[in-house]
Amino acid sequence: MKMGKVQSSMYGLCLVSSIALNLLFLRNLYYEGVGVGGKWKKLSWSQRAAAEAEAVAAVSCSGHGRAYLDGLLVDGYPVCECHNCFGGPDCSVLSPDCPADADGGDPLFLEPFWIQHAASSAILVAGWHRMSYTFDGKTTISKELEKSIRRVHSVAKNAITDGRYIVFGVGSTQLLNAAVYALSPENSSSPAKVVAATPYFPVYEIQTEYFRSVDFKFQGDANLWKNRSMDANVSMIEFVTSPNNPDCQLNKAVLEGPSVKTIHDRAYYWPHFTAIPAPADDDLMIFTISKLTGHAGSRFGWALVKDETVYQRMLQYIQTSELGVSRDTQLRAAKLLKVVLDGDEREIFEFSYKAMSERWEKLRTTLSMLRGRFSIQEIPPQFCTFFQQVRGPSPAYAWLKCEREEDEDCYAVLRAANIIGRKGTRFGVNNRHVRLSLLRSQNDFELLLNRLRKLVSEEDGAKIM
Amino acid sequence: MKMGKVQSSMYGLCLVSSIALNLLFLRNLYYEGVGVGGKWKKLSWSQRAAAEAEAVAAVSCSGHGRAYLDGLLVDGYPVCECHNCFGGPDCSVLSPDCPADADGGDPLFLEPFWIQHAASSAILVAGWHRMSYTFDGKTTISKELEKSIRRVHSVAKNAITDGRYIVFGVGSTQLLNAAVYALSPENSSSPAKVVAATPYFPVYEIQTEYFRSVDFKFQGDANLWKNRSMDANVSMIEFVTSPNNPDCQLNKAVLEGPSVKTIHDRAYYWPHFTAIPAPADDDLMIFTISKLTGHAGSRFGWALVKDETVYQRMLQYIQTSELGVSRDTQLRAAKLLKVVLDGDEREIFEFSYKAMSERWEKLRTTLSMLRGRFSIQEIPPQFCTFFQQVRGPSPAYAWLKCEREEDEDCYAVLRAANIIGRKGTRFGVNNRHVRLSLLRSQNDFELLLNRLRKLVSEEDGAKIM
Repeated sequence: MKMGKVQSSMYGLCLVSSIALNLLFLRNLYYEGVGVGGKWKKLSWSQRAAAEAEAVAAVSCSGHGRAYLDGLLVDGYPVCECHNCFGGPDCSVLSPDCPADADGGDPLFLEPFWIQHAASSAILVAGWHRMSYTFDGKTTISKELEKSIRRVHSVAKNAITDGRYIVFGVGSTQLLNAAVYALSPENSSSPAKVVAATPYFPVYEIQTEYFRSVDFKFQGDANLWKNRSMDANVSMIEFVTSPNNPDCQLNKAVLEGPSVKTIHDRAYYWPHFTAIPAPADDDLMIFTISKLTGHAGSRFGWALVKDETVYQRMLQYIQTSELGVSRDTQLRAAKLLKVVLDGDEREIFEFSYKAMSERWEKLRTTLSMLRGRFSIQEIPPQFCTFFQQVRGPSPAYAWLKCEREEDEDCYAVLRAANIIGRKGTRFGVNNRHVRLSLLRSQNDFELLLNRLRKLVSEEDGAKIM
Repeated sequence: MKMGKVQSSMYGLCLVSSIALNLLFLRNLYYEGVGVGGKWKKLSWSQRAAAEAEAVAAVSCSGHGRAYLDGLLVDGYPVCECHNCFGGPDCSVLSPDCPADADGGDPLFLEPFWIQHAASSAILVAGWHRMSYTFDGKTTISKELEKSIRRVHSVAKNAITDGRYIVFGVGSTQLLNAAVYALSPENSSSPAKVVAATPYFPVYEIQTEYFRSVDFKFQGDANLWKNRSMDANVSMIEFVTSPNNPDCQLNKAVLEGPSVKTIHDRAYYWPHFTAIPAPADDDLMIFTISKLTGHAGSRFGWALVKDETVYQRMLQYIQTSELGVSRDTQLRAAKLLKVVLDGDEREIFEFSYKAMSERWEKLRTTLSMLRGRFSIQEIPPQFCTFFQQVRGPSPAYAWLKCEREEDEDCYAVLRAANIIGRKGTRFGVNNRHVRLSLLRSQNDFELLLNRLRKLVSEEDGAKIM
């Protein structure tokens, strides 16, 4: 009897534990099985891909690198790809004399945002996903993605999309050229003159010259064509970049008149990088996911186009070049924009503005200690309709000027301080200016600050001596 | 005492069941947790994306359609997108008078292969995957993908890759134009003449004319330039399509000489569509994933290039146009090729050859009953180094000819029989010919056969009367 009692209490205890464990497993199963619309569904074929992605994400690279699903393999395992200036198997080794890279516009300041939103931003692509050339036997453009793009503009209050057509391209880069083709006259005896006000983004010139079309020709600085009596038979196409790359000013068109057409490059017109005084309402506006979500590698951009003929011609460019943008990319872009539109629809803008304005402030403070040697552009505080308040600057680039008379080659001056910027001549001006990229990874930005601070301490040291 | 015994047996029974249930759950957890290299890893952030993909895949569309992750939503749920001629919420309703679509080259005959390989072909893309413009601070091309491409050619024995450079493009479509730019003379007073032997793939003409470069000009049928005394200062660029689109013959270059350069469009040079007599060894060969794995929508192609200068110029085209091909697409392509290279590395070739040769046989049998009215191209059996045996035809297209004298407009003849083909004039020849696509979905192919069989029974009916 006593034995029986002990036995049944033990049994009871074990049973309770066992049932508790069951409930735990059951909870996990349910938790794991929550599908679209909350319906329970046990995972099967997707399991392996999910496990592969998590295993790669779990590879530790010391915060100075990352392993990727399609990264280099060593013994069949993906290994760390280290950030600039870091090395070693887990990217923990900093090369002390490695130059600070402030050259390209890689928008990696946004990477932490996506790591914070891992669950909502992941997509699982089935082997049979969108194999066809078209979505519905006709178009090469995802309707759901188009809807999300319109919604994002409406939320950010940065562009009017009502009554606009949308064209997708392989990054905004491709759409720049598509727009030039679309705006050039057909079969005219004189090619359109393509211009941009200095300092301008170098790609306009490189692309326009590369394609060597009989219908257009790059003609340099738009300011040189202002107030000149223009032949009404010659079309002018002006690139207007606003905010401008490199100096982040909210440029307006320089030229006007019936023979002038404009392409508004609005890549940086997001609350991340500028106050939004009013939604842009230009005839042809170009945007890129690279400067909205930070996914430069996805190569996805879009144009908002008012005129139907121009829209049709841009579409023809994309169809003729390549039969539309990759459906894999469109799927990913749709998911990323869905995350942008999650919750109160403000999170990514607040994250980006905070990150970029803090960087600007740190740079400005450091450079103020080098006054007389360097100056940077002024960006006045301005009312932003997105934030509904006056806000300070948060530009993507610093447009640095070497002020000392002898420092004619500003790029070389910085290079001597172990900083890589982008030369002023690349933007159609002299070498007194250098563009410093502020939207790269935290590692790159900190290295840039450290190099500048070293200059400060060297100057202080020189003063004491 | 008795009560205690019953109680403890009941407890015991419950405990056994409970433990068994626990073991079952545990097994599931382990099973679910098998990650890269067999290491146990519990899923967390990837769970939701996996469940979403499975929920979409589980939407039933009667085998005549499919729901997609980025498909149209009704009340927040993805709905069926029906194949051509099918409708209703679950795509079960066939429109009886709907025309059979044998027009475009959508390679959906391969869709069932990917459904069979669901687990191995899925990828989970993390929100932070490859945000940068480059892979390693330099290139825009995945090294692992490049390795897989070389391996696939070596397995299929269809092209020599040793000592070749590889350029990626947005489908082979984009690489065609990149090749024309790369092979055209720089700053010559006379533009290169671009030609292709009729019947030729229409894109060569459309693209070359669209870009209106000062450096090249489309000049029609290559045969017209044969044996003509050519100005040594004028470059000729010949597109050689082998197997040819539309007639699937293993074409060779028509022109030769020091001023002639060739672009070999090898899109269909896979065991799927032709015997492989020997690996292709041309100077510039273009391939596309569309005709290898069936993923036309991914827009991914590659060129194998012998000459370094030509390679550099093609790379410049891709960089200038768009800064490289989407990393999302490259990730997907890498995964698909990994599946192609799984196991004995033969499965997709055997699947495709079987599917295409069966379709050809069915078409030939049906058309043999319409002799005197229609004829199709002859493709002799040939030794294939991949299959190591003589094999019969399995072309991607039928190149149909209307034989009756009055049937000058063969497209209209087929259209009257409720079949949509592609007009001969699109390929630079007269309208006696029509191209019928054989690589579309099973639904499309069966509809095509049914319409032809209907013609047979009408002819039989007419004979009896």
